[in-house]
Amino acid sequence: MRPGGFGSYMLAMDQKTYELIGADYPGNRVEDIKNPSLGWMIGFMFVVSFLGLFSLVPLRKVMVLDYKLTYPSGTATALLINSFHTHTGAELAGKQVRSLGKYLSISFFWSFFKWFFSGVGDSCGFDNFPSLGLAAFKNTFYFDFSPTYIGCGLICPHIVNCSVLLGAIISWGFLWPFISQYAGDWYPADLGSNDFKGLYGYKVFIAIALILGDGLYNLIKIILLTTREICDKRSKQNDLPLVSSFQDSETSKILTEEKKRDQTFLKDKIHPWFAASGYVILAAISTATIPTIFPQLKWYMVLVSYIIAPALAFCNSYGTGLTDWNLTSTYGKLGLFIFASLIGTNGGVMAGLAACGVMMSIVSTAADLMQDFKTGYLTYSSPRSMFVSQLVGTAMGCVIAPLTFWLYWTAFDIGSPDGPYKAPYAVIFREMAILGVEGFSSLPKHCLEICCVFFALALVVNLLRDVTPKKVSRFIPIPMAMAVPFYIGAYFAIDMFVGTVILFVWERLNKKESEDYAGAVASGLICGDGIWTVPSAVFSIFRINPPICMYFGPSGASS
Amino acid sequence: MRPGGFGSYMLAMDQKTYELIGADYPGNRVEDIKNPSLGWMIGFMFVVSFLGLFSLVPLRKVMVLDYKLTYPSGTATALLINSFHTHTGAELAGKQVRSLGKYLSISFFWSFFKWFFSGVGDSCGFDNFPSLGLAAFKNTFYFDFSPTYIGCGLICPHIVNCSVLLGAIISWGFLWPFISQYAGDWYPADLGSNDFKGLYGYKVFIAIALILGDGLYNLIKIILLTTREICDKRSKQNDLPLVSSFQDSETSKILTEEKKRDQTFLKDKIHPWFAASGYVILAAISTATIPTIFPQLKWYMVLVSYIIAPALAFCNSYGTGLTDWNLTSTYGKLGLFIFASLIGTNGGVMAGLAACGVMMSIVSTAADLMQDFKTGYLTYSSPRSMFVSQLVGTAMGCVIAPLTFWLYWTAFDIGSPDGPYKAPYAVIFREMAILGVEGFSSLPKHCLEICCVFFALALVVNLLRDVTPKKVSRFIPIPMAMAVPFYIGAYFAIDMFVGTVILFVWERLNKKESEDYAGAVASGLICGDGIWTVPSAVFSIFRINPPICMYFGPSGASS
Repeated sequence: MRPGGFGSYMLAMDQKTYELIGADYPGNRVEDIKNPSLGWMIGFMFVVSFLGLFSLVPLRKVMVLDYKLTYPSGTATALLINSFHTHTGAELAGKQVRSLGKYLSISFFWSFFKWFFSGVGDSCGFDNFPSLGLAAFKNTFYFDFSPTYIGCGLICPHIVNCSVLLGAIISWGFLWPFISQYAGDWYPADLGSNDFKGLYGYKVFIAIALILGDGLYNLIKIILLTTREICDKRSKQNDLPLVSSFQDSETSKILTEEKKRDQTFLKDKIHPWFAASGYVILAAISTATIPTIFPQLKWYMVLVSYIIAPALAFCNSYGTGLTDWNLTSTYGKLGLFIFASLIGTNGGVMAGLAACGVMMSIVSTAADLMQDFKTGYLTYSSPRSMFVSQLVGTAMGCVIAPLTFWLYWTAFDIGSPDGPYKAPYAVIFREMAILGVEGFSSLPKHCLEICCVFFALALVVNLLRDVTPKKVSRFIPIPMAMAVPFYIGAYFAIDMFVGTVILFVWERLNKKESEDYAGAVASGLICGDGIWTVPSAVFSIFRINPPICMYFGPSGASS
Repeated sequence: MRPGGFGSYMLAMDQKTYELIGADYPGNRVEDIKNPSLGWMIGFMFVVSFLGLFSLVPLRKVMVLDYKLTYPSGTATALLINSFHTHTGAELAGKQVRSLGKYLSISFFWSFFKWFFSGVGDSCGFDNFPSLGLAAFKNTFYFDFSPTYIGCGLICPHIVNCSVLLGAIISWGFLWPFISQYAGDWYPADLGSNDFKGLYGYKVFIAIALILGDGLYNLIKIILLTTREICDKRSKQNDLPLVSSFQDSETSKILTEEKKRDQTFLKDKIHPWFAASGYVILAAISTATIPTIFPQLKWYMVLVSYIIAPALAFCNSYGTGLTDWNLTSTYGKLGLFIFASLIGTNGGVMAGLAACGVMMSIVSTAADLMQDFKTGYLTYSSPRSMFVSQLVGTAMGCVIAPLTFWLYWTAFDIGSPDGPYKAPYAVIFREMAILGVEGFSSLPKHCLEICCVFFALALVVNLLRDVTPKKVSRFIPIPMAMAVPFYIGAYFAIDMFVGTVILFVWERLNKKESEDYAGAVASGLICGDGIWTVPSAVFSIFRINPPICMYFGPSGASS
């Protein structure tokens, strides 16, 4: 669930993207071109990819055990894996596996069915079903029949789902329509939908402000509490204040099972000093190497980015744990914007794009690793062996990914808007970098002020969650969860809310059954949809297009 | 579930329809006009409406008890009525009621949801969902998400559902595409979709041939067996050979409950002699009166039609009992065609339309009454009091229906193709009558031959069902059920087949549960959809149109 991708920022640097934007575009300089080549790509990947792995390892106990973050995809995968090993298990486990299998098939075939009607254009299929009416659809409020998000809604705590919906209502229901009224006054009215100068700027930066507010609050809280814990020389007991309020539903679960899991998870330690020193050494190597690849990016800037990166990585992992949305590209855009504006006209474009790559790599790897730690925790896997295999996998990826990318880039006409391999995001990334060079002054009116307000709000809401008694605080929304729809759209919030309503009714009707099966049903829904992506990708490789386009219009427009 | 309607044949006689077709249309004579007026309409209704009630009363034991015909709508209504009285009942009954209520709500809200996307045109919404692909959709093969027919599929025996699907495959999958190849050779290629001279002629008459073959076979079988029974002076035991093979699934049901129901159903007798004499007296009155209203229809022809009518009424009741499709308008068209061709150019049009009215009235009332007898049987109602209330209701209808019709006809511009009250079927009925005057020679090539083949096939298949051992005969399809999709289309066969597959899987997974709940679920689905028709009608009265049109096209056509 990650918008954007690996190659966009690299393609944004090449000759073709430069030409597509046009030499007469202000700020698009011929000096800011670096075509892909195998050498620098592999080198770059090697020096940036491993940092993400080391950045958050020390926090895995806090995030998985204490905060009990959901990581819906990770949990679903774990339940699926566990289901393969329960043929000798208890009766309940067998029933859970059957239930998982049933919903997995339903979800898979439903996604298959949906595919037939998804047509070729962007406006076809169930992903554009105006289930709440056409007016609501225009503001991204619609139920899109996605098994994945309904599953997420079933697996996430109610407060997360409700926060997501609240965020969707505040942003897409009020804030964006409100800001849109000032189009032409606060910002030029005729901009593209991905232009930082327009509404998109508000979306990205306000979401980022909320996320950073919440993320930094929690990071500082964790650091303070951990420091106090170490000072007091007391262990275990003091962890409890960390535990967030949304774990109650779990407390009734059988505790022995959990204890066993906790032990496995904590047994194979990866020592914090090992992780920290690994990160420092890698950062040092990277700081020395990257300026030789991108001379525009000075060594002290790389260093600064590695000091900031773990905080962003924490924010992303925390957000992914809550809502399953990995917002890597958003953090990448933040890095791009900041570094482009810091360096300015002379080389800012290339520096911004390179910084974007560095940020995305760390932030994305950190969130994926934490997701995997959650899976590992639920499947009784040794975290240390998981970490080692991640290292091996990353090393392979650092060679294979650039190789594949480079093969395609040399063999095909990548990025041509008329060819089969379009790269619209390359143009967008380059334009963003060009804009970023102008700095914060290029942002639309009042954007920074609104961001500050939301940043402060995130801090206040978090403080409220911590100081109020539990019976109040459990109804206070989580700013991080609210921020995701600000940027993504309201549709998945609707799906997740449907999931939460189903779970709520189920809990009222049959508490025991819902506790036993909700996870299995959710995992089935998420995994079925996930498995469908494989044949779907095969279809698209062989250029098998969906035969039918289901589209929607106001009544009477059909004839 | 009845296509066509009450007013079409009457409107077909009026001045406006004559003008719409045009004075220069061959066979459209100015003499064949009779505008609606309160007097003759009420008189006509009174002399034809009651006959249907008397025609099949003696057969109600055979059809409801011995043949155990399903009458899905009637059964669903009965279960719904019963559910209101079970608050003191057993645990199972309570659970059944809850299950019925649940599926009733689901079905209702699903129909409500579908409405939003059904647009204004004919091609919008879920009723036109090419769920099996666009090519299959063109041949009416699609799953239209109709809870009613899925419910019918759940409630009807498997062999009925499979017969319906087989009929759909034979007709829409092979026969119509095959005949269409000869468009321009066997029949003119440029005809409208409701023209007897074209493919429509094949559809109507082949369906009729199958229906008549099956219906007459069963009618004769019942008469023979009943006669033998009376001769042998033996009672009760000998009824069993009549019992058709699709009752097995019921035999396991608790027999005491059934015995109680049977007793209530048989207690309040309506004596066959009373029914027969009632029919004869009414027929006599009608034979004397109708020629005064429609001078073109001679008295002996009315008499003949009353001799044939009970056989057709039996066919229709039998077919409705199997598939829930009341094909009244098809029988009406048969009457229209035969009488128009018998009388010929001089008055054939009016005679045909009048005969159509007579037929439709009898055939429709008979099927509705049998449906009600089924409901009454399942709700322990006295058949005699039901019959009396039907008589009262019919008398009221004979005054109210023409009154309402006449009010509208005088107040509004009924039948104008540009006005709000269109009457497309009025034109179609009149054109059919004009065509009927030419007799069987007007039918397309080979139509009569194919009809004879299917008529013979219906007899043979029925004979096979009776002479083969039960373990073979239960796999032989029922021609009557096969005939319905010939005329209607394949989509409801798909729905019913989905229902039957659900039931089949359910029976395999949990036999007991499926026996206890399948009826309740099916009734919920059918009734929920049925209840939705009320708000739907209110919306259409107040001209509230669905806001969205969901339409489908081949990929790429969207842009």
